[in-house]
Amino acid sequence: MTDLPFAPNPMRRALLTGTGAAVTIAAVGPWRTAFAQGAAARPLPAFAAFKDAGTMIVHSANTIEMRRGPAGNGSLTTVNQLYVRNNLAPPSADIVAKPDDWTVKIEGVRRPKSLSVRELKTMGTESVTMVLQCSGNGRGMFPSKPSGTPWQTGAAGCIMWTGVPVRHVVAALGGINPGMKFLTGTGGEVLPAGISPKSRVERSVPAAVYEDALLAWEINGQPIPLAHGGPLRLIVPGFTGVNSIKYVKQVAFTAAESDSSIQQTDYRMTPTGEASQRPTDPSVWQMPPKSWINTPLAGATDLRAGEEVVVRGVAFAGVNAVKQVDVSIDGGQTWQRAALVGPDLGRFAWRQFELPVRLAAGKYVLASRVTDVRGNVQTENRVENKGGYLNSSWRDHAVSISVA
Amino acid sequence: MTDLPFAPNPMRRALLTGTGAAVTIAAVGPWRTAFAQGAAARPLPAFAAFKDAGTMIVHSANTIEMRRGPAGNGSLTTVNQLYVRNNLAPPSADIVAKPDDWTVKIEGVRRPKSLSVRELKTMGTESVTMVLQCSGNGRGMFPSKPSGTPWQTGAAGCIMWTGVPVRHVVAALGGINPGMKFLTGTGGEVLPAGISPKSRVERSVPAAVYEDALLAWEINGQPIPLAHGGPLRLIVPGFTGVNSIKYVKQVAFTAAESDSSIQQTDYRMTPTGEASQRPTDPSVWQMPPKSWINTPLAGATDLRAGEEVVVRGVAFAGVNAVKQVDVSIDGGQTWQRAALVGPDLGRFAWRQFELPVRLAAGKYVLASRVTDVRGNVQTENRVENKGGYLNSSWRDHAVSISVA
Repeated sequence: MTDLPFAPNPMRRALLTGTGAAVTIAAVGPWRTAFAQGAAARPLPAFAAFKDAGTMIVHSANTIEMRRGPAGNGSLTTVNQLYVRNNLAPPSADIVAKPDDWTVKIEGVRRPKSLSVRELKTMGTESVTMVLQCSGNGRGMFPSKPSGTPWQTGAAGCIMWTGVPVRHVVAALGGINPGMKFLTGTGGEVLPAGISPKSRVERSVPAAVYEDALLAWEINGQPIPLAHGGPLRLIVPGFTGVNSIKYVKQVAFTAAESDSSIQQTDYRMTPTGEASQRPTDPSVWQMPPKSWINTPLAGATDLRAGEEVVVRGVAFAGVNAVKQVDVSIDGGQTWQRAALVGPDLGRFAWRQFELPVRLAAGKYVLASRVTDVRGNVQTENRVENKGGYLNSSWRDHAVSISVA
Repeated sequence: MTDLPFAPNPMRRALLTGTGAAVTIAAVGPWRTAFAQGAAARPLPAFAAFKDAGTMIVHSANTIEMRRGPAGNGSLTTVNQLYVRNNLAPPSADIVAKPDDWTVKIEGVRRPKSLSVRELKTMGTESVTMVLQCSGNGRGMFPSKPSGTPWQTGAAGCIMWTGVPVRHVVAALGGINPGMKFLTGTGGEVLPAGISPKSRVERSVPAAVYEDALLAWEINGQPIPLAHGGPLRLIVPGFTGVNSIKYVKQVAFTAAESDSSIQQTDYRMTPTGEASQRPTDPSVWQMPPKSWINTPLAGATDLRAGEEVVVRGVAFAGVNAVKQVDVSIDGGQTWQRAALVGPDLGRFAWRQFELPVRLAAGKYVLASRVTDVRGNVQTENRVENKGGYLNSSWRDHAVSISVA
């Protein structure tokens, strides 16, 4: 395990005690307290040293988010401002030194095979732009204070991935075996000795998702760095980030879901109050419709009565394209249609929205609400759940401002 | 004029003496000598402070290139590694603080109008990925040592621009006036008092180019920084960088080419030996087919007999899509077809190519040669010209390696 420059590293400590649940513990105790109190910025860990420190919030060595603000309004997120969330410490950086030598096993197909990145590059390349969002983005807005990193809005970005479509690989290997219901990706993290193999990073999603999935070696046109899963990452567009397996070493079509802890007893929509997350609760897979405002933000001091201020933000809806975004300046009592101003980079990408307003002096609560092409509307309230996942509440993401 | 942290600034000095030709003088005397001798790196100027210093070569305050190497092999170039070449010092950074307030005058159409970026954003947004390359990229390989920055390969990048197609703007304003043969863009640089207005940054390209052109406010998905022409840049895909006007304040359809020096007596393919560049010589407009190898490079010490080494580089052909790339290991005596390995991001983007080879101990000269879909082939030799423009010679770009 890579030595990360934090002490104590709660994940590492928990892992070494052998508790399966440890893989989701990333920012507890002193970290959270320090964050809430606005303590001095923690340094970036070595594997994410290329990040733009001024734009980021370092929760822990494996959990780093982008501050809410203008940088979040671009049609793409720059890689040095993209959040980092690792479920285990990353493998050695050696694996990105010769990225083409990395191999991934393809199982559950007619002709199972190990393929190197070099070979994958000959099988037809595509790019897909999509929102990468941590399952727990917005957890910090749950009053129930679930365990886990208290992300605000910044564990999300819109990214162009480039690689080979999984459907090309499947076709080349003779098709999927009968009866396979899941697409199961396994990460290349190295588990410390004595740790249960159930702590491995392995996730299953419905097999049909393979039609959209990519085995990617580029992020925004450059080789994927270790912090984002290089040399090869399984990309599952429209699903939360945990399903897009980093350092992917196996892609298997399977009859059952993985028995990993991260599949069975984490990332489940278990009601608050239960003792633990349960395999029988819904898995955290597709992202619901969600939008938020990045400018202006609470605390803005440059808002003057009668002057135009442009409300800006981003909106997406998992696997579905955005149809419209509405903005409220009165906490959701009335809504106005915002303009979609940016490029349409495909149904998995976010859309930028804008609404210019002129406000009299006073206090306002700004909110945004997206509707997708299938008629799904961003919900007013979060779905309460023990893990603090999938917070897409427009009310939680509302912004209180004062106009002088 | 912004004060740049170099002394002496040859461009500024020349401008203040009032010579029109000064606008192309950017790296002369001590700069070139220092570069050739591999002197200590010069600091990045303030407006390009966000650049990745370790990847860049700072020729002068307004001329910064990316080192030849692996970073050049991505399907997109990251903005903090993209070259900078300004013909004049940039305007005040104030102009990017409120980008939507920037206005551009549209002339030579039925209903001329000034439009703000805010208005442009409502007129339909598209993204185009294209090679941005300085007209003088490769000038450093001319034995004739033309005046100007001795760029190697790094005054080029592949970039995704986002904005409104000029054809949308033209349609909204009633169409182009009859008889207009050129699309003329004017930059928003501020000329010091006493300088001839002919020193302004203004370029004309054939009017038909408007079908491909964009008025862009995003570069790789983020607002365009000052160093790259924000808040608004005229993008002319397939043409050299000088034609993509930064801080664009006017786009005019005109009957004649601009009378600016940069149009009339610079960026002309004037034969070597003439006293000055002549308006009657061809203008530097479209980019010819060009490719180069980024890895391995001369001086590589890790090449071992019998081990596989992958020759990698990029290829493009101006307005035409790439059809194929051939690679030679014997200085152009024989050629092998390389694989196009990356995504096809459109005809204006570059393609990545790869050829794995195993070499016995010895010396080799690696070269690459692109052919476009119209059958145009990258030329063996440069077109000699006084200004050192458009060097696309595959021989000049060849790489000499030793295998141990």
